[in-house]
Amino acid sequence: MKALVLNKPLDLEISDVPDPGAPPAGFVRVKVDTVGICGSDVHYYEHGRIGDFVVEKPMILGHETAGVIEATGEGVDGLTVGDHVAMEPGVSCGDCGYCESGRYNLCADMAFWATPPYDGSLAEYVVHPARFTYKLPIGMSLEEGALIEPLSVAVHAANRVDVLAGETVAINGAGTIGAVCVLVAKARGAARIIVTDVSPERLERAIVLGADVAVDVRSDSISEPFDVGMEASGHPESLPRLIHGIRAGGRIAIVGMANQNINFDSVTAGVKEIDIHGVFRYANTYPMAIDLVASAQLDIASLVTHRFAFEDAVKAFEYAIPPLPATGKILIKL
Amino acid sequence: MKALVLNKPLDLEISDVPDPGAPPAGFVRVKVDTVGICGSDVHYYEHGRIGDFVVEKPMILGHETAGVIEATGEGVDGLTVGDHVAMEPGVSCGDCGYCESGRYNLCADMAFWATPPYDGSLAEYVVHPARFTYKLPIGMSLEEGALIEPLSVAVHAANRVDVLAGETVAINGAGTIGAVCVLVAKARGAARIIVTDVSPERLERAIVLGADVAVDVRSDSISEPFDVGMEASGHPESLPRLIHGIRAGGRIAIVGMANQNINFDSVTAGVKEIDIHGVFRYANTYPMAIDLVASAQLDIASLVTHRFAFEDAVKAFEYAIPPLPATGKILIKL
Amino acid sequence: MKALVLNKPLDLEISDVPDPGAPPAGFVRVKVDTVGICGSDVHYYEHGRIGDFVVEKPMILGHETAGVIEATGEGVDGLTVGDHVAMEPGVSCGDCGYCESGRYNLCADMAFWATPPYDGSLAEYVVHPARFTYKLPIGMSLEEGALIEPLSVAVHAANRVDVLAGETVAINGAGTIGAVCVLVAKARGAARIIVTDVSPERLERAIVLGADVAVDVRSDSISEPFDVGMEASGHPESLPRLIHGIRAGGRIAIVGMANQNINFDSVTAGVKEIDIHGVFRYANTYPMAIDLVASAQLDIASLVTHRFAFEDAVKAFEYAIPPLPATGKILIKL
Amino acid sequence: MKALVLNKPLDLEISDVPDPGAPPAGFVRVKVDTVGICGSDVHYYEHGRIGDFVVEKPMILGHETAGVIEATGEGVDGLTVGDHVAMEPGVSCGDCGYCESGRYNLCADMAFWATPPYDGSLAEYVVHPARFTYKLPIGMSLEEGALIEPLSVAVHAANRVDVLAGETVAINGAGTIGAVCVLVAKARGAARIIVTDVSPERLERAIVLGADVAVDVRSDSISEPFDVGMEASGHPESLPRLIHGIRAGGRIAIVGMANQNINFDSVTAGVKEIDIHGVFRYANTYPMAIDLVASAQLDIASLVTHRFAFEDAVKAFEYAIPPLPATGKILIKL
Repeated sequence: MKALVLNKPLDLEISDVPDPGAPPAGFVRVKVDTVGICGSDVHYYEHGRIGDFVVEKPMILGHETAGVIEATGEGVDGLTVGDHVAMEPGVSCGDCGYCESGRYNLCADMAFWATPPYDGSLAEYVVHPARFTYKLPIGMSLEEGALIEPLSVAVHAANRVDVLAGETVAINGAGTIGAVCVLVAKARGAARIIVTDVSPERLERAIVLGADVAVDVRSDSISEPFDVGMEASGHPESLPRLIHGIRAGGRIAIVGMANQNINFDSVTAGVKEIDIHGVFRYANTYPMAIDLVASAQLDIASLVTHRFAFEDAVKAFEYAIPPLPATGKILIKL
Repeated sequence: MKALVLNKPLDLEISDVPDPGAPPAGFVRVKVDTVGICGSDVHYYEHGRIGDFVVEKPMILGHETAGVIEATGEGVDGLTVGDHVAMEPGVSCGDCGYCESGRYNLCADMAFWATPPYDGSLAEYVVHPARFTYKLPIGMSLEEGALIEPLSVAVHAANRVDVLAGETVAINGAGTIGAVCVLVAKARGAARIIVTDVSPERLERAIVLGADVAVDVRSDSISEPFDVGMEASGHPESLPRLIHGIRAGGRIAIVGMANQNINFDSVTAGVKEIDIHGVFRYANTYPMAIDLVASAQLDIASLVTHRFAFEDAVKAFEYAIPPLPATGKILIKL
Repeated sequence: MKALVLNKPLDLEISDVPDPGAPPAGFVRVKVDTVGICGSDVHYYEHGRIGDFVVEKPMILGHETAGVIEATGEGVDGLTVGDHVAMEPGVSCGDCGYCESGRYNLCADMAFWATPPYDGSLAEYVVHPARFTYKLPIGMSLEEGALIEPLSVAVHAANRVDVLAGETVAINGAGTIGAVCVLVAKARGAARIIVTDVSPERLERAIVLGADVAVDVRSDSISEPFDVGMEASGHPESLPRLIHGIRAGGRIAIVGMANQNINFDSVTAGVKEIDIHGVFRYANTYPMAIDLVASAQLDIASLVTHRFAFEDAVKAFEYAIPPLPATGKILIKL
Repeated sequence: MKALVLNKPLDLEISDVPDPGAPPAGFVRVKVDTVGICGSDVHYYEHGRIGDFVVEKPMILGHETAGVIEATGEGVDGLTVGDHVAMEPGVSCGDCGYCESGRYNLCADMAFWATPPYDGSLAEYVVHPARFTYKLPIGMSLEEGALIEPLSVAVHAANRVDVLAGETVAINGAGTIGAVCVLVAKARGAARIIVTDVSPERLERAIVLGADVAVDVRSDSISEPFDVGMEASGHPESLPRLIHGIRAGGRIAIVGMANQNINFDSVTAGVKEIDIHGVFRYANTYPMAIDLVASAQLDIASLVTHRFAFEDAVKAFEYAIPPLPATGKILIKL
């Protein structure tokens, strides 16, 4: 079958790879329909690594995925041939204490699509565990299905930091993750959403998605107190600013990856009794995220600005390299 | 000044009562503008008592209140003459363990408007503690201000039972409390809201307010699992039905007052690990409820169907006696 | 191999049954050393059923189990031949939403030892998933290992109801489950523990284990307020009494199985804002329970009063039929 | 009356000051019996300031206080002349959102003993709000009463970080705050407690108080994973080390004041999903802390190593200046 293979940095091509074959017990075989391009895919394409994760042999990219079930393995209940599905890209061991206690995103043996050494989903077919494959309800598109993955990041972050109806939420960063945080904060009833970024286009989109205030941090800063802070920019100054601006008793989610040595005001964090919650991917979010989209509590499809055919997938990645000309989500259609 | 005084059951009149005078330190004097009629007001009017609370001397009715500040006592910050305000009707002692730990609704020394022996707010003026008086933001009407009280019941109940975005919520009872529960569940991002009642008019209104399914329990029952149950009907069969229908791991809020001896299936409550949360009035909800209304996360004003002038207040109560011909909220305008 | 088989009510014998064989991938083969007799085992022995669970064909009894690993299947990490282990008796599906979110005790496909139609552990050998098999630390006995199962019930119940250091806890019922609740409440720092029962011997033991007050409910009742109530008696009057006696804002765990139609005072549960938590078995408790015993935070071995050899297992059950002459835990040693 | 007055740094004397007089409504007059010396008292004595809090006029020191009630103001319930009491040193406004929601330690208008410009309690008499005055149970000494204040810091920190029975807790710093954290972690059932410091004497005391492992960070580091970290050293390297060593999903309390610009590894905090909780003083802890001491769940009196008479109070402070020759708590007896 065909797949989009990253041979080495900036060397990406559609190649023939072995078909994954029939699904074993507990697995399903899915014809891939739509895959979103994530910042991490682009980062591997450009640099061949993210931190300690290094692409050492050719790897298929892609992990934001929806498709149609083509076959089901033995013992699979609740999924049948022809079902439209979204797939959770991380397969945890299922046996360790983290898996058993529901925090499988912390499993040390996680195999995650397009995170070396594991292949991703930008291929004609994937074989995936049924337990991480979720049927889309009638009326929900496969494009929306592919976007359940980035949406899950925000659903999980909002759960961790417990955004409450009526609160004011500050979101640093208006890229895809910041944008889904706006959507989820709004769906949870945030009374006021403040978004910061350095890109006027991204800030404008955030307002369209439901933010109330947009702050360009090149020239301005947040001028009002807030209950919840969400760091989704990856910038090293972002967390310090949230700690400085948040009201006493506030909560902060660390969603973006800044770096390993940022400044931290532990006196203020203590005196204000701030709660700071690390956030890593997500767990147990797919059903809720699907229900949020299906019930029209949020419009995830509005994030999409570009669609490429699979045969143009290399062009899609060339286009997606920063500085990105556009602010929206790019999908590849198989 | 004039006030609406309940002399004894079914004996209600506008009387002259002593003016409350100038506000002492920490208090404000408010010219009352709008007061909503609550089911408890009507119950006192009809029966002169609710459980152990007995009207033994003439009592002013009313506790859902908004008005305009006329004077402020010494040491009052953040409130000034002319401010439009909503007032929380319960004044707790401020000194006991419940008050200190934030659960002041459980204070044993609570003085609550229109709960014997305490007079209510259906009067030209009230003098009230500044700490339970909340300024309405620009653009929010005094009618909306008066409705912050019933809305608070739902905000508190939803906090207690932690309605999460993407969940399915079943609400038993579509009266005012059921209706505000629909609004708040929707604002918190519930993906699906099921409402039950015996009144087609009430059920129809619930759908208008955002419910997805209406169940007339005279002929039907809930046919799908749900994550959260809210008992807001006061009917003794309601809690048993929620326990029976809820999915394992679900949570239930007891908002309505049923009676002291209903049936309880403790085996099912145990085997399903249901969490059942008693709910009594509210605490710390006014700021959030005001922000929810101000930010248009929910439309509380849509509950109002009738308005009476103060001089027609007795007629308003006569009209409000069950079986109530209409389903909406009745306001008295001073 | 030999196993203790219940053919039908009151017909129990040591029989030859097929050896479970070599462990498949992810499983271990354990030579059983010690099995505690639980009330449910005795109930099946006497009555052949518990609620809807009916013994329709011969079934091996026993589920409180410790032993020594004899062989490990492929892919088993962290467990080796010769390890002393305690085994969690319920094997959940691992794939459903409850399993993935850490509440695997609510899994609809749970296979639990000695719950029809599943055989139990009173046999020479068992083959069990490694993920539900826990190595005992050096210095911890196999008898203590077998008692991790009933201890887990209390660890889970105390987690559900969140017993806090410094609180007063009322525990209704001083049988094995009440006794482990006393131990766990004490280990969590409860300042005052009140225990009720109808047996002076059980109450005396509760005091020895750390309770501060013993109340014989045949003649007396709890005379002081408490923060947390734990229903562990199965008596239909127990939950109503806890609701009546608990302080406002208190929390109650339903650990014992009363019946499906007890009286419930929903007015008091509401007005006091009581939280009532159903408790079903346990999840994710074995590591913590083992650490509590290993660190001497509690003395689980003190519960044991009788030991029988495996060849006397039928006598052990005959002895255990209520009215039980003694109050302690009965172990069968293989 | 006499009081211990700090005129300016290193200028401390027993002076005549005005008697506080009769207690107004809601207040009590207490004859002070025992006051503990806190590190903050010593810091004001040496430096005349802590951060932005500057001693600009003579100030009475002391805030860890127990005494005997001499008079009660109008409306005081539950406290009578002759009662032995512990007093919470911070008086919050009682009216703001933090006070109403139970987080009064975050009140912006807090008046805290011996924090400029507010006088402390090292005086013959104090007049204090009844709501922050707690009766000691029979059998509890006034010395223990004075120690409820530092104990409260640990009770609050353990509540914030939710130390669970069976967990492993790492506590950085073995001074008074580290020591009370050991006591509280032990009382909550921690299975294993690791303490770090640079003083062999402090580490030895921590072991006596219940720690399992002592690590001298001058030469060593923590070599095992832990569930909960408590930073109580004030050292800027402490939080980074806790973040590095803690297991994924762990929780950290920031109890000690490090400084406003420490290093922070936000990638690790994110990937491990660590929860970091700022801790500022305490709220709602006195009743629980008193019950913990009264029920012998922990032995707070064992912290005391030195006692000085009031007339030797200046000597006590001279003795307490770092480098402190002894590791224990110093009390002043009036």
